[in-house]
Amino acid sequence: MKKNRLSVEEYIQGVIDRDRVILSRAITLIESTLPSDQKIAEKVMEGILPHSGKSIRIGITGVPGVGKSTFIESFGKLLVEKGHQLAVLAIDPSSQKSHGSILGDKTRMESLAADKRAYIRPSPAGSALGGVSAKTRESMLLCEAAGYDVVLIETVGVGQSEIAVKGMVDFFLLLMLAGAGDELQGIKKGIIEMCDALIINKADGENVEAAKRAKREYANALHLFPAKENGWYPKVKVSSAIAKTGLEEIWGMIEEFKGKMLFNGFFEENRQDQRINWMHDHIRFLLESRFYQDELIKGKIDQVLPLIKSGQQSAIAKARELVDLFVLNQIGRGS
Amino acid sequence: MKKNRLSVEEYIQGVIDRDRVILSRAITLIESTLPSDQKIAEKVMEGILPHSGKSIRIGITGVPGVGKSTFIESFGKLLVEKGHQLAVLAIDPSSQKSHGSILGDKTRMESLAADKRAYIRPSPAGSALGGVSAKTRESMLLCEAAGYDVVLIETVGVGQSEIAVKGMVDFFLLLMLAGAGDELQGIKKGIIEMCDALIINKADGENVEAAKRAKREYANALHLFPAKENGWYPKVKVSSAIAKTGLEEIWGMIEEFKGKMLFNGFFEENRQDQRINWMHDHIRFLLESRFYQDELIKGKIDQVLPLIKSGQQSAIAKARELVDLFVLNQIGRGS
Repeated sequence: MKKNRLSVEEYIQGVIDRDRVILSRAITLIESTLPSDQKIAEKVMEGILPHSGKSIRIGITGVPGVGKSTFIESFGKLLVEKGHQLAVLAIDPSSQKSHGSILGDKTRMESLAADKRAYIRPSPAGSALGGVSAKTRESMLLCEAAGYDVVLIETVGVGQSEIAVKGMVDFFLLLMLAGAGDELQGIKKGIIEMCDALIINKADGENVEAAKRAKREYANALHLFPAKENGWYPKVKVSSAIAKTGLEEIWGMIEEFKGKMLFNGFFEENRQDQRINWMHDHIRFLLESRFYQDELIKGKIDQVLPLIKSGQQSAIAKARELVDLFVLNQIGRGS
Repeated sequence: MKKNRLSVEEYIQGVIDRDRVILSRAITLIESTLPSDQKIAEKVMEGILPHSGKSIRIGITGVPGVGKSTFIESFGKLLVEKGHQLAVLAIDPSSQKSHGSILGDKTRMESLAADKRAYIRPSPAGSALGGVSAKTRESMLLCEAAGYDVVLIETVGVGQSEIAVKGMVDFFLLLMLAGAGDELQGIKKGIIEMCDALIINKADGENVEAAKRAKREYANALHLFPAKENGWYPKVKVSSAIAKTGLEEIWGMIEEFKGKMLFNGFFEENRQDQRINWMHDHIRFLLESRFYQDELIKGKIDQVLPLIKSGQQSAIAKARELVDLFVLNQIGRGS
């Protein structure tokens, strides 16, 4: 019976009732690319929307090897022990070639995954980033409706996924290693500019001194950037997921951030901007879906592809012809 | 009279006649966001298309500080002295905040810029990456039609721009520094996977030994990646733009690559794939342009934005309503 679809109402009620199985099925539903599923998914999202929004949304990024999983496991344990309900979503569009380093390793975050107070869900690596981020955003709202009050969104990417995640979280953490490069060498400026805090991870054993030194260097480097519009100065912290140091301080910083942003109005302003961007992302998704699912267009694309491939015809001219045809075809149907 | 528009014919003829002033004006035209300019631009592109395609297209990336400008200047000098006509295009969508580190420094590549055999053109940093990359692709074709037989596309980005550039070049170079990180630390795996060669730059003076060591390390690390579909194994080279070492070898490698790819058919296959992607990019661009330029949609968006912002209404539901309305409005016009 597992394959039977639930009704829209059953999905909504199940999520609100904090049924983990139904939450997982709802996320699977919204990740589906079937048009029939997408229509149901949209109604489910409508239904859960009034129940969403009450979590603090935290993005976490860092290069492979920086220790994100271990950090999330230790940090997550701290949060659930403080009484929070924690959802962890992971997106990984970076490695289309090797098909997802995040998802491959099922043994990651084992102890957190076994904890009833935490919910861990990987998002599939997709070729269309817009799609992936839209689904992650909806997964986040579903988790919120299911009562999770802290949502961590983890990403490893080539920059694109960080931009997508930045567009859906309240607070953005960048994990780094001491000694992994001279000052900011190797970390893209754009990512540094995005982050609200920089964590020097693996500050344990022989690394402690190097981490402290790195903290000073990064703090100096961050001074080179202008203050953020919201009045927040990105902070640098050290932590060790193994020695379990720095984690309380990081959570304290996030609470401080939230307090300040609620006070100066930027918490809501940021979320408002994110909702607007979400609409634009979805408009793009719908326009492209309608276009490529149009039967006439499908046939025409098959015809023109060889001409474009060979360079006999211009890609831009054919694109315009196809879009004109699409619009005319919609007219033809309507009249 | 400078502001007077040229006719489509004048643009095409000027470009084909290798008139640098008209080439620059043609690039400015295609970068314009005015719909009237875009229509002319499309016709100009149609006209120059049969004259394009005859260059070797080389992408160059690397983090800030790696010495890209100096490398391009020295490498460019070598190429023009070999009798090549060189065009350098720079795109920098990474720093929307600080408005373009590439473009800010007018003194970059001074001696190359003064050389009649080279043409240097920065692309504006834009918020819509698709737009930027489409314009860069068209600028590249214009340069080819104007007789430039080597096109270098330089990028500094947060990953997005590298993906865009990879999608329009034949060969992709990643510049790195020795000692800038333990093995591949700090460089995103996705970018390494994309590159056809890795150059350890600034291999001069005290750095020579470190560069040689780094070369061995990177060569070992690259062995961890599977062979590319085209049969090319990414190579590691050392170079110094100041001591002018390694540049001949790098050009030799690119010529070797081109020869092999022409022989095994992947040169043309790659370009065919790129043309197809270009069509899809342009379809997206046109769909979105039509949507957002629709007068009815403009009015409706103004109405719904406050409701979306406040979270009273769902961004996805409103997106669907707007797209439905757009299609109906097109029908209304046609009947």
